[in-house]
Amino acid sequence: MSRRAELIAIGSELLGWSRHDTNGSYLARRLGERGIPVCFRTIVGDDPADLRAAFAVALGRAEVIIATGGLGPTVDDLTREAVAGLLDLPLDDDAALLRGIEERFRRHGLTMPPSNRRQAQVPRGAEVLPNSVGTAPGLVLRQGARLVVLLPGVPGEMERMVEEGVLPRLEAADEVLATRVLKIAGLTESETDRRLAEVHAGAGDVEWTILASPGQIEIHLRERVRAGAGPLGIDRLDRAIEAILGEHLFGRDDETIESTIGRLARAAGATAAVAESVTGGGVAARLTSTPGASRWFRGGAVAYSDDAKVALAGVDPGILARDGPVSEPVAAGMALGIRARLGATWGLAATGYAGPEGGGPDRPPGTVVLGLAGPGVTTTRALRLPGPRAIVQQRAVMAALDLLRRGLLGRSA
Amino acid sequence: MSRRAELIAIGSELLGWSRHDTNGSYLARRLGERGIPVCFRTIVGDDPADLRAAFAVALGRAEVIIATGGLGPTVDDLTREAVAGLLDLPLDDDAALLRGIEERFRRHGLTMPPSNRRQAQVPRGAEVLPNSVGTAPGLVLRQGARLVVLLPGVPGEMERMVEEGVLPRLEAADEVLATRVLKIAGLTESETDRRLAEVHAGAGDVEWTILASPGQIEIHLRERVRAGAGPLGIDRLDRAIEAILGEHLFGRDDETIESTIGRLARAAGATAAVAESVTGGGVAARLTSTPGASRWFRGGAVAYSDDAKVALAGVDPGILARDGPVSEPVAAGMALGIRARLGATWGLAATGYAGPEGGGPDRPPGTVVLGLAGPGVTTTRALRLPGPRAIVQQRAVMAALDLLRRGLLGRSA
Repeated sequence: MSRRAELIAIGSELLGWSRHDTNGSYLARRLGERGIPVCFRTIVGDDPADLRAAFAVALGRAEVIIATGGLGPTVDDLTREAVAGLLDLPLDDDAALLRGIEERFRRHGLTMPPSNRRQAQVPRGAEVLPNSVGTAPGLVLRQGARLVVLLPGVPGEMERMVEEGVLPRLEAADEVLATRVLKIAGLTESETDRRLAEVHAGAGDVEWTILASPGQIEIHLRERVRAGAGPLGIDRLDRAIEAILGEHLFGRDDETIESTIGRLARAAGATAAVAESVTGGGVAARLTSTPGASRWFRGGAVAYSDDAKVALAGVDPGILARDGPVSEPVAAGMALGIRARLGATWGLAATGYAGPEGGGPDRPPGTVVLGLAGPGVTTTRALRLPGPRAIVQQRAVMAALDLLRRGLLGRSA
Repeated sequence: MSRRAELIAIGSELLGWSRHDTNGSYLARRLGERGIPVCFRTIVGDDPADLRAAFAVALGRAEVIIATGGLGPTVDDLTREAVAGLLDLPLDDDAALLRGIEERFRRHGLTMPPSNRRQAQVPRGAEVLPNSVGTAPGLVLRQGARLVVLLPGVPGEMERMVEEGVLPRLEAADEVLATRVLKIAGLTESETDRRLAEVHAGAGDVEWTILASPGQIEIHLRERVRAGAGPLGIDRLDRAIEAILGEHLFGRDDETIESTIGRLARAAGATAAVAESVTGGGVAARLTSTPGASRWFRGGAVAYSDDAKVALAGVDPGILARDGPVSEPVAAGMALGIRARLGATWGLAATGYAGPEGGGPDRPPGTVVLGLAGPGVTTTRALRLPGPRAIVQQRAVMAALDLLRRGLLGRSA
């Protein structure tokens, strides 16, 4: 049974709405790479009783406890005292540490304020991790099989101490945690779940998390493997999932749908252009977020008004008047028009009602029509997308990008 | 003594390095405004034993417990079962809830997969919070003086439920936390800091946090006030800040630069059109993210290639050849061209190099030229924006939006 870790982030500002615990994210990554899973993350403010409570809980459920913050010189910095009190350890003055801190101030032409003396106090039996960048030293305590590490909250100081002092103390586990993310478009979360129920049931020791964002599903797989060995369980599931989902599976790990499109377009020597209304520029913005987009992305029209659909995307005003702006003929006209106007291999179009306003009883908010025009193919797709305005727009962007991706794969029909 | 809250964020993905618990930040803000301090935040994965442990600890130290995540239809969604098991409550089928979920699928032309049945199970005695946006209902359990609230992890669904179902159940405390966010464009963080040093020093009991995102600075002010009383300290600082920053202060609280532009455009009966290359559709996407944008936003051209600058934005090919695509004449030509083509009151343009590639030694990545054409005014602005590609794009979007805002205010010269 491998060791489990808990991270404790200390600081009242981290309880509020304006700061994220980025130290915890860094620690989770570095521990995961050593095969030590983080099972709990706790955030607690600068309150002595709450701090003690947080450490007491962590000592009851984790073998490696790493806390960040509360080691500074101010009256709010209470981590040292809270842990020493909880573990019933006296705080001793560390003469070498004190000299080091005084020396640091002297080097900057300053005299050490009396409050910094507290940073030279060490719970009896703790090892000191020197701070090469700031004044707050780190502390390592062993409590039976448990390792308690106290680190400063300043990211640069904390990270240096982890790399130099903490990771070397965590003997590399025989096991490490391998991860893979599979990315899926064009299916709902429950539909993905249904299709993969059997594979999921046979996942064995591979942990499986499914995550949905508007228009995209991710499956996160994690597997403990012997250091140096390949993630055989993940590889087996990856193959099984790909066999079932086929082209709904568009990428892995850092790949995005726009980077996939860029890769396919460059491989085919193809270019693309976009005419969009309901997505308001969001499709173009996603396509141009990848470096090198200028090699295959020609440009786009944000045809938000009827005039713009005619003037920029070359839609026939007669069709617009007859079928209305949110219709399959107009979506096809936008795709064909922008393709011709910018001389692109592919023209992609999106029109619709994002809400809160719609286009009458049979075209409520969420009605979206996509169009794609390419070599020998013109296709449209009518969708009813759920959610408020911003979610409809995000879903429509993903659906449009997926349609272009399928066109590039030769599977848009 | 006021009630104390603990937030529990559920999901193995939140333990890792790639996702932040943004739900917790939102909840901390809304609870703080009701005078209920958040004392602990716990993140736990999709493990049944760990989930039960997290709730057991929270029940021992907080009066209000709000958990997000793990209420979906998949086998990973275990919150309902963990809490019911811990509190020894049987799970009952809720017929009305089941009908609602089935109906929701039917409306989108789908049949409910069997896995969604679990979302209609309710721990005995729990109140149901309807989900107007998705399928997972929220649940409220009372345990003596303790309130345990289970919410879905999808931010849009969670927030709606908090506003409609949770906040009304939390009677207001004697003291509440008043907050205000002031939003600033066109100044760096250090310049904002320098101009406001004296006001900041006199902030008294008002907490002051400054937050920078690319192209935008926010000042977050917080003040404890008796329930029903006005935030006098915040009001005083707000007036002092506005007097110093003038039009750099573009909005407060939920206002965005695009909602401000929409308000100014509607008030003036003005319309706007955009031609953008470096921002790739990002300016149009921001403008169209506000409801009702179709009333004043005419459309835009994503003129990513030279051809597109000519074909969509009407730039003179001779100027393009002479001055290059990232130049003041081309920015002005794009603004004038799109304004004329779409018959808009204002034409806004952005061209530049987002990186990693640039346009030679005197036009490195980060070189951006903006153009604005309006009634009796054509102006350009050349900028050198720091940061990698995505940050340059974000800064350029904000700078372009700010130029349009100043045009609408009659202050673009």
